Amino acid sequence: MATATPKPIKCKAAVGRAAGEPLQIEEVVVAPPKAHEVRIKIICTSLCHSDVTFWRMKGNPLAVHPRIFGHEAVGTIESIGEHVDEFKVGDLVVPVFTGQCHECADCTSERGSNICSLLPFRISPAMPRDGTTRFTDMNGESIYHFTGVSSFSEYTVVDVTQVVKLDAAVEHNKLCLLSCGVSTGVGAAWKLAGVDVGSTVAIFGLGSVGLAVAEGCRIRGASRIIGVDLNPDKFELGKKFGLTDFVNPKEIGDKSVSKVITEMTNGGADYCFECIGLASLMSDAFKSTHQGWGKTIILGVEMHGSPLCIAPYELLNGRCVMGSLFGGIKPKDDIPTLLNKYLNKELELDKFITHEIGLDEINKAFDLLLEGKSLRCIIWMDK
Amino acid sequence: MATATPKPIKCKAAVGRAAGEPLQIEEVVVAPPKAHEVRIKIICTSLCHSDVTFWRMKGNPLAVHPRIFGHEAVGTIESIGEHVDEFKVGDLVVPVFTGQCHECADCTSERGSNICSLLPFRISPAMPRDGTTRFTDMNGESIYHFTGVSSFSEYTVVDVTQVVKLDAAVEHNKLCLLSCGVSTGVGAAWKLAGVDVGSTVAIFGLGSVGLAVAEGCRIRGASRIIGVDLNPDKFELGKKFGLTDFVNPKEIGDKSVSKVITEMTNGGADYCFECIGLASLMSDAFKSTHQGWGKTIILGVEMHGSPLCIAPYELLNGRCVMGSLFGGIKPKDDIPTLLNKYLNKELELDKFITHEIGLDEINKAFDLLLEGKSLRCIIWMDK
Repeated sequence: MATATPKPIKCKAAVGRAAGEPLQIEEVVVAPPKAHEVRIKIICTSLCHSDVTFWRMKGNPLAVHPRIFGHEAVGTIESIGEHVDEFKVGDLVVPVFTGQCHECADCTSERGSNICSLLPFRISPAMPRDGTTRFTDMNGESIYHFTGVSSFSEYTVVDVTQVVKLDAAVEHNKLCLLSCGVSTGVGAAWKLAGVDVGSTVAIFGLGSVGLAVAEGCRIRGASRIIGVDLNPDKFELGKKFGLTDFVNPKEIGDKSVSKVITEMTNGGADYCFECIGLASLMSDAFKSTHQGWGKTIILGVEMHGSPLCIAPYELLNGRCVMGSLFGGIKPKDDIPTLLNKYLNKELELDKFITHEIGLDEINKAFDLLLEGKSLRCIIWMDK
Repeated sequence: MATATPKPIKCKAAVGRAAGEPLQIEEVVVAPPKAHEVRIKIICTSLCHSDVTFWRMKGNPLAVHPRIFGHEAVGTIESIGEHVDEFKVGDLVVPVFTGQCHECADCTSERGSNICSLLPFRISPAMPRDGTTRFTDMNGESIYHFTGVSSFSEYTVVDVTQVVKLDAAVEHNKLCLLSCGVSTGVGAAWKLAGVDVGSTVAIFGLGSVGLAVAEGCRIRGASRIIGVDLNPDKFELGKKFGLTDFVNPKEIGDKSVSKVITEMTNGGADYCFECIGLASLMSDAFKSTHQGWGKTIILGVEMHGSPLCIAPYELLNGRCVMGSLFGGIKPKDDIPTLLNKYLNKELELDKFITHEIGLDEINKAFDLLLEGKSLRCIIWMDK
């Protein structure tokens, strides 16, 4: 139960006012949490590629403005709405873009779905239960949400299903990473693919998610981890994450990537991960898997709406394609497990953090990511 | 070691001389088995849809004539070639269209591939090791093989990797069924999908393979088995194989099959099997699976060479597509297991046999299958 009725809070936020335009640091008003919601004081947040995708999207009903982006973060519970028993003021939490209600047919199924059907994941411009916003600008106009998190603000309101409590004395920037990208990649190797000791893996796209897949495969004992990326600098970087081999599509002449990987691996990789979001690359990944058992894991969100087309006879050779949001991670069950892996020094998080800035400099985080210079840029609210 | 040098055998065979034309009963000469080959005296054979597909195929390099079709059969070893230690004259065996050498990287892998890489499966017109034929007609012309089995002949030569010994006093027509279609369907439910107790299944196409999938799902304890077929008679028939529900695409108005199944199953089936070989149906099957865990299993060989196109975001909801030749069955390991399931009265085989004829009447088997009147028509060599 809420101990005192929370009031609106005026605070600083980075607001996207037009597609692809620099975010504006503004004062906004954050309404109190409603039933089944909490208001979080963000400690730090970080920029993920999906923020950039929707920030620059035009001419799509999902692209709305003004909007507060951001969905990787860590913070403390500032206040709670009605019917919130799971959290109390002061709890250290990470918000996540997809929920786990522990009640719906999906969340309670033994089959392991991480797609909550009480509040299904949507790139929604508002809160999931009542479809209204909690942000207004200084002119009294509503500001839209992003994935129900909107962490590029000193305060934000999040549904309880999308909040994970982490009871640990761990540097906040490390916890922030578990909120999306790193968990997605590690989760994909661990929960979705079930990469096993001695296996051969190819990872298409070595952004943060791709490198997190490598980290996951390294932890799982893969003996060969092949990175595929157009940027040659990614090989040296990738070695820190367990990469053993590298294929640059620009440097293989007339050969296809799948042919190169098939030759390198004596028939194909056991597991191929697509971490970019291009149907053509998904198809390349599929063809790079070994007949008889090869698994292709789709993590990228296809950026042009193109279908994945595969030749059925290639499937008949015993191949498999699977995909998942968030790498199969059930937020409330699995993020604490990943934190334990970090505490046990299995999972290494430090190497994902390449930059740390303050909220006022947030547009620099966009520049760094777009220039391929950063993995995770931590954005501190108090810096 | 061969005890006596085998001689050519003159015998009766059904020869396909032109695409889609009735087979001709002719005398042919079957050469002795070469190294790693055995000659089999066929007891009975049966007609499978793949025979029909290639029998009527025109204008494709895979469609060659004259050819002896047939790949489901049971027989006894009549003679053996050099380097054959696994079989002796008189052994009761079933030939199969795909091999298991026990030596190649695929056959020895612990990952469970059933795609032998020593002699990869091909719709080959000749023997797999030396690329020559063992059949000649009365004019001395070569007759092509089909899948290395060519069982529509009183005698045939088969590579040892494609022969499974079955040491059992079981009616021969039952053993014949384990050679392809029934094993494919049951294997897909058992080995490939791993259908579990209480699960919900939809099967697209209720031919013999589809009904064998139903039988496999029934054995595995699926609680709901939905058949999808344009022929309304298939529901009554399917009930014998465990079918609990039926969807006729012609009787659902404007609704899509996937919408109907999604509604019937409160979100989608746990497993969907495509047993026809149509890319559009594969896509329907995929969309009929439950988010979070739904598996689509492709068994049909796409008949128009069309790609399977799926929306990547549907995959991201935690779905999976897989396929396999022969339902993931490793012939020499798994067919004896299926035979045991029959002996233990788990697997029911009798109900698949709808007709029994002699070799001279073989064209009737084609008519019955094309008219949708038969499941398996047993063709006896001595009838």
